[in-house]
Amino acid sequence: MDPYKVLGFNETVIADYLIEFLRDEIEKVGFKKAVVGLSGGIDSSLVVYLLKEALGKDNVYALIMPYRLSSKESTEDAFKVVNELGIHYKTIEITKMADGYIDESFNKVRIGNILARTRMIVLFDQSYDLSALVVGTSNKTELLLGYGTWYGDMASSLNPIGDLYKTQVRILSKHMDVPENIINKNPTADLWVGQSDEEELGFSYDEADLILYHLFDKRFSIDEVVNLGFSKKIVNGIFERVRENQFKRLPPIIAKVSRRSINWDFRFLRDWGQV
Amino acid sequence: MDPYKVLGFNETVIADYLIEFLRDEIEKVGFKKAVVGLSGGIDSSLVVYLLKEALGKDNVYALIMPYRLSSKESTEDAFKVVNELGIHYKTIEITKMADGYIDESFNKVRIGNILARTRMIVLFDQSYDLSALVVGTSNKTELLLGYGTWYGDMASSLNPIGDLYKTQVRILSKHMDVPENIINKNPTADLWVGQSDEEELGFSYDEADLILYHLFDKRFSIDEVVNLGFSKKIVNGIFERVRENQFKRLPPIIAKVSRRSINWDFRFLRDWGQV
Repeated sequence: MDPYKVLGFNETVIADYLIEFLRDEIEKVGFKKAVVGLSGGIDSSLVVYLLKEALGKDNVYALIMPYRLSSKESTEDAFKVVNELGIHYKTIEITKMADGYIDESFNKVRIGNILARTRMIVLFDQSYDLSALVVGTSNKTELLLGYGTWYGDMASSLNPIGDLYKTQVRILSKHMDVPENIINKNPTADLWVGQSDEEELGFSYDEADLILYHLFDKRFSIDEVVNLGFSKKIVNGIFERVRENQFKRLPPIIAKVSRRSINWDFRFLRDWGQV
Repeated sequence: MDPYKVLGFNETVIADYLIEFLRDEIEKVGFKKAVVGLSGGIDSSLVVYLLKEALGKDNVYALIMPYRLSSKESTEDAFKVVNELGIHYKTIEITKMADGYIDESFNKVRIGNILARTRMIVLFDQSYDLSALVVGTSNKTELLLGYGTWYGDMASSLNPIGDLYKTQVRILSKHMDVPENIINKNPTADLWVGQSDEEELGFSYDEADLILYHLFDKRFSIDEVVNLGFSKKIVNGIFERVRENQFKRLPPIIAKVSRRSINWDFRFLRDWGQV
């Protein structure tokens, strides 16, 4: 099964819709500008390409936030995007901050989460200083799998690509003229040189996207997805990951003791009261 | 109007319910332990008193995370709680981390948010290392007013006191034998020595709680609340704060482009699939 066929869409329509979404959501809360953590990977690159169309290049700020172990290539790709688009950027090293806490006993998982959250701190602080909303860069594959850091890279004010599978991020990136080498490079969370998402996950994004799409968008059962030709072990594993990571997609649960409790029966849209 | 009368409840019933909530929510996800950022203020103190009853003193970890500008009194009060309960604790200075980013041009708002988020990083990292869930300490007054840092002190895995107004936190703290001086001291986010919540907010918690309770729990209109004897300016101001801060109580919004999108029509409880 070809994920690019199954998950294909009308790129022009989707791009226009997402550009309008960004413009609307940012302007209606009184902002004009956006800030994005730009890693040099495909997801954050696509987001700044969309933002440039939505807000104009003068209103987009890319933050490049390398750690001492980040790969030079990623940073170079981030600069390539910035130069191509002519948007503002700032380079803020997070090494001093993160290493103010990390010591040699910390494993990769801990370090990864600390770096993601340290970048979140810088991003939201710059957001305040620049009066620019933080635009998120997690895609649907990552969000469903919980392959991201809660309150870290999963934190943002709004997310234009959270409903696009990795395959669809690639399709749209091609349409938006994101540099080819960024589209084609091996996906990595870039927590250490040579890290590979797919190696870490134990399956490819092609597989993950097709399995997730059939399980959740098409509401196939696990057995039905296996019958399409996928390994039972991988389908089960992916289903379990989605289930177990539901907490990362929700606000913290609050013990209900009153007649009107936040996120139980006190429920409003975020633009509650705005016209 | 006496907030302690209007907002009073059966302390024994509420305490038992919250203790059971903590035990259930922590055990059903396979954990036995909890970790809390203990500032020495009333909210986090109450939470560790409840946790000790829920999990036993050996399963509760308090993290004391002073910054170089934190008041000595707050840290002393945190130690008092720890000693009284006999729970585990760790003191982790956040100065090096935070000052790895903060410079002399940063104002108090920026510094406050950075400190709250730096503590979040340490708390979630220790949560991983100790296999202990992060229990939140934001009360209903703060959550409704948005008087807290998004992705900072508002971040947790679960929150036992998020449906209790500040007044009710005081009532329950008395019942749980939280030290008197902690209950009675001037509420402060403790971002600098001498900071006062009520001074910063421009109204007292007594007022805020009564106004919030009538507006949201009792669904009074703004005019009806003013007719109870509150200043129109304060009632309006509080209503606006609640409205404007709705975004802090929700996950980031995702642009919907598929037939099943996270937090639009892909919706599950966090214990989805568990019995």
